[in-house]
Amino acid sequence: MERTGHKTTRRQLLSAIGMLGGTAALYNMMTTLGHAAETQFTGPPNLSGARPGASVIVLGAGLAGMVAAYELTKAGYKVRVLEYQPRAGGRNWSLHGGDTYTELGGATQKVGFANGNYLNPGPWRIPHHHRTLLHYCKSFGVALEPFIQFNHNAYVHNTDAFGGKPQRFKALAADFEGNVAELLGKAIDLKGLDAEVTAEDRDRLKEALRNWGMLDHDMRYTKGLKSASHRGYDRPPGGGVNGAPTPSDLLPFDEVLKTGIWNNMAFFMNHEFQTTMFQPVGGMDQIGKAFAKQVQALITHNAKVTKISQDKKGVTVSYSDTGSGQISEAKADYCVCTIPLTVLSQLDNGLSPKMQAAVAAVPYSNSVKVGLEMKRRFWEEDASIYGGHSFTNQGISLISYPNNNFFKDGPAVLLGAFASGMGGYQLAGMTPEQRIEAVLEQGSVFHPESYRKEFMNGASVAWSRVPWALGCCARWTEETRKEHYQTLVSMDDRIVLAGEHASYVGCWMEGALLSSLDAISRLHKRALEA
Amino acid sequence: MERTGHKTTRRQLLSAIGMLGGTAALYNMMTTLGHAAETQFTGPPNLSGARPGASVIVLGAGLAGMVAAYELTKAGYKVRVLEYQPRAGGRNWSLHGGDTYTELGGATQKVGFANGNYLNPGPWRIPHHHRTLLHYCKSFGVALEPFIQFNHNAYVHNTDAFGGKPQRFKALAADFEGNVAELLGKAIDLKGLDAEVTAEDRDRLKEALRNWGMLDHDMRYTKGLKSASHRGYDRPPGGGVNGAPTPSDLLPFDEVLKTGIWNNMAFFMNHEFQTTMFQPVGGMDQIGKAFAKQVQALITHNAKVTKISQDKKGVTVSYSDTGSGQISEAKADYCVCTIPLTVLSQLDNGLSPKMQAAVAAVPYSNSVKVGLEMKRRFWEEDASIYGGHSFTNQGISLISYPNNNFFKDGPAVLLGAFASGMGGYQLAGMTPEQRIEAVLEQGSVFHPESYRKEFMNGASVAWSRVPWALGCCARWTEETRKEHYQTLVSMDDRIVLAGEHASYVGCWMEGALLSSLDAISRLHKRALEA
Repeated sequence: MERTGHKTTRRQLLSAIGMLGGTAALYNMMTTLGHAAETQFTGPPNLSGARPGASVIVLGAGLAGMVAAYELTKAGYKVRVLEYQPRAGGRNWSLHGGDTYTELGGATQKVGFANGNYLNPGPWRIPHHHRTLLHYCKSFGVALEPFIQFNHNAYVHNTDAFGGKPQRFKALAADFEGNVAELLGKAIDLKGLDAEVTAEDRDRLKEALRNWGMLDHDMRYTKGLKSASHRGYDRPPGGGVNGAPTPSDLLPFDEVLKTGIWNNMAFFMNHEFQTTMFQPVGGMDQIGKAFAKQVQALITHNAKVTKISQDKKGVTVSYSDTGSGQISEAKADYCVCTIPLTVLSQLDNGLSPKMQAAVAAVPYSNSVKVGLEMKRRFWEEDASIYGGHSFTNQGISLISYPNNNFFKDGPAVLLGAFASGMGGYQLAGMTPEQRIEAVLEQGSVFHPESYRKEFMNGASVAWSRVPWALGCCARWTEETRKEHYQTLVSMDDRIVLAGEHASYVGCWMEGALLSSLDAISRLHKRALEA
Repeated sequence: MERTGHKTTRRQLLSAIGMLGGTAALYNMMTTLGHAAETQFTGPPNLSGARPGASVIVLGAGLAGMVAAYELTKAGYKVRVLEYQPRAGGRNWSLHGGDTYTELGGATQKVGFANGNYLNPGPWRIPHHHRTLLHYCKSFGVALEPFIQFNHNAYVHNTDAFGGKPQRFKALAADFEGNVAELLGKAIDLKGLDAEVTAEDRDRLKEALRNWGMLDHDMRYTKGLKSASHRGYDRPPGGGVNGAPTPSDLLPFDEVLKTGIWNNMAFFMNHEFQTTMFQPVGGMDQIGKAFAKQVQALITHNAKVTKISQDKKGVTVSYSDTGSGQISEAKADYCVCTIPLTVLSQLDNGLSPKMQAAVAAVPYSNSVKVGLEMKRRFWEEDASIYGGHSFTNQGISLISYPNNNFFKDGPAVLLGAFASGMGGYQLAGMTPEQRIEAVLEQGSVFHPESYRKEFMNGASVAWSRVPWALGCCARWTEETRKEHYQTLVSMDDRIVLAGEHASYVGCWMEGALLSSLDAISRLHKRALEA
């Protein structure tokens, strides 16, 4: 491969930019040249020139609040953070053995997991392109390990297909692709697509279909070692005298279609769920703890905000101590408010009517997660499933296998439900004990021999019952975006909102961070102009 | 979900089998019921009843030889292992910093990698269904970590497409699926497939194509946020005022076809390369070392086998010490010979003419691997690629990114070539220095700004020049299988061959182990009959 003049010129250009403007400029230029449109993150914000003594009060010590506190403090602002909970991190949260959690309605769970096991009720996986989060994880020393998002060998279950018997993803996906390839090949041969595809591309496309869809020489998807090499064998290849493999039966295409396997295939191709994904070693709360380590001195815990007001001089926040009930006041020049909209909309919040309308307009999702501790990793030992998810059209939506401590003996926690919509409402309406029973019943479809037998204990979080969130995360629609988004993210005099709800990366930690960095950049600009 | 009578009966049946016959019987029964056809491994072999004093000589201390020695010793046989190298493990091998390697032709490389970095010249990844290998890894305490086989964000390069500019896998795969879906949708609408698909399935298939292929309401694959959610954004979703994403341009379908992207898509669906895959923590040689720990006392190293003979009384092996040149003889009742066929065919080996013909009939592949140590992880930092492979139609075939120490600062080793066929012959014909230059030149296409700039040092192994293997692994054809396989795996009087070449899982450690377990089971049967 000769290097072309174009490439040399481009490299020289990039090098020159690198010398002049540093990494961020180089990064932006690379993006322009089509090289790395992976993120809107271009590095921590430049907040230079802050007026000495300028102050900011941050409401909420989740990731959005803590990153604001961290960057504003670095820039020279005087920062205070008020947090309702005794713990920093917000929805970045893990339940470990020994933890106690009381939900709205009063039910209290004492988590019984063995040492080292955990449930991440909120965020649980990190896309490789969430570079803001990855930046701070690296800066703050959070160790990450792969999260196995895509597992060909896990199950897909649909009550309306195959008599309710789960099938392996690989078999359904291979059969879907094989049938699609065979049908399109036929259509090409029947001259149906001559107007759509040139003769040259038709030949190339047929070659593609034959090799992608594992078709035989006659362009048919048939039982044999070729299809088995994708869908799995009846008897896989082995060694010695009886080493020869035998192929597996194809599944009936109409039943394959009934599973909705295309949804799972499309899910794995979704930008947010593409490989490689990560999780913190030891639980998602390691991220919140690492942020908290940076800003702990700024945080007042157990502080329930009761009123926010602003005038020409600044912002005043009243809050009560959740233990003593004592009321205090905090004052600052500006406020970054990261309180979830579900809670903020119920507060005397000092926002303009237009902003109030925006705050009230965004509904929150109602996800429910249930962690089940099992005596042993039967999904690994008996079913060769290491991480990833088995999907179902039942209320639990999926079960997800742990991505840490592969192959280890002893108890492990799998995610027994990640329910939303109707499934979420049903589980949220139950007692914690009833939830366990329901998810054991539904999840048994995947591992009927072991699921109940190996079960030890469980823990559940219904986000609609989480006292400090009253929902999982913001679910914008196209219409609410159009009407309210720009209002919601604007500075409302001295107050600016931040959090995943103030982003297009809703329900992700990355959205909370990007929102917050944008919010404090504008707050800083406003402060400089004051 | 009600449990059906069928399920209950099945569970009861399985439970009863479990009580009667133990795990292996339960496993076999589950396979019969269609539950777990993942492997031919059903546990370590039962070699009970060995005659006291019966002896076996094992030739080669690779995995096949060592598992034979381990299981035969456990069963009561008197075992000795002869190994040519000063090291056990065979092709299970890692090159670490400080190692020295001399290839056929005399070129010597001193490996300059930093502490902890390595190249696996031979096996480098473990499928989740290679349960024999996983069994022994667990038994012998080998820690495994995920090997990121499938990475949507890595590149695909073809000199004949896009003017030689690499594209992200996700964009090519999304555009292939989108175009296939749109074309098949059109064919259905044009009534071309009415004879092939029922009306009900046609509707379901159209729904599937729309959702799998990210088609718009008119069943067209168009530029927009829907296609961008699979292929990537021009500007990805962000936070705050400028958070809205913008879609990316679709690639021209004729160019997409020219990349041969379907080969990559099919590759990831291949049974052997399906997720989840693993690698040992610290290098593949950790497996060989763990096996060696079990049988070290039985191994005579630096023993070059010069002659094998057998008669009614037993097997005699002559060998010379590679240091002193001193000739010795070893005798045993039986012999398990794991010497690669490339070497065995050149020995005075005492095998029958029919077996000699089989040994001579199997060609070996000529893979070449090159490890490149880079100053920093620019593929992670600049290109958001964490593990996985970028593919090319150049001789190097791919570059592969390390799956350990993600996000870490400091030097890392990537695989700069995994060449075979013509690309392998070309690299094998060069000096180690020339190989480095060639793979830097070819690999630069993926990371033009960094590849040469960040390069520190490299190491290469051309398997055709490995003195003790003379090739990488056995490549059976359908014809040679038919003519020679059953001969090759049969007991040739008192000698039985074992290794990946004596399996249908060729070129994999699993094949070596399954072959060996089958070989010693038959040896044991023969010994009991003697």
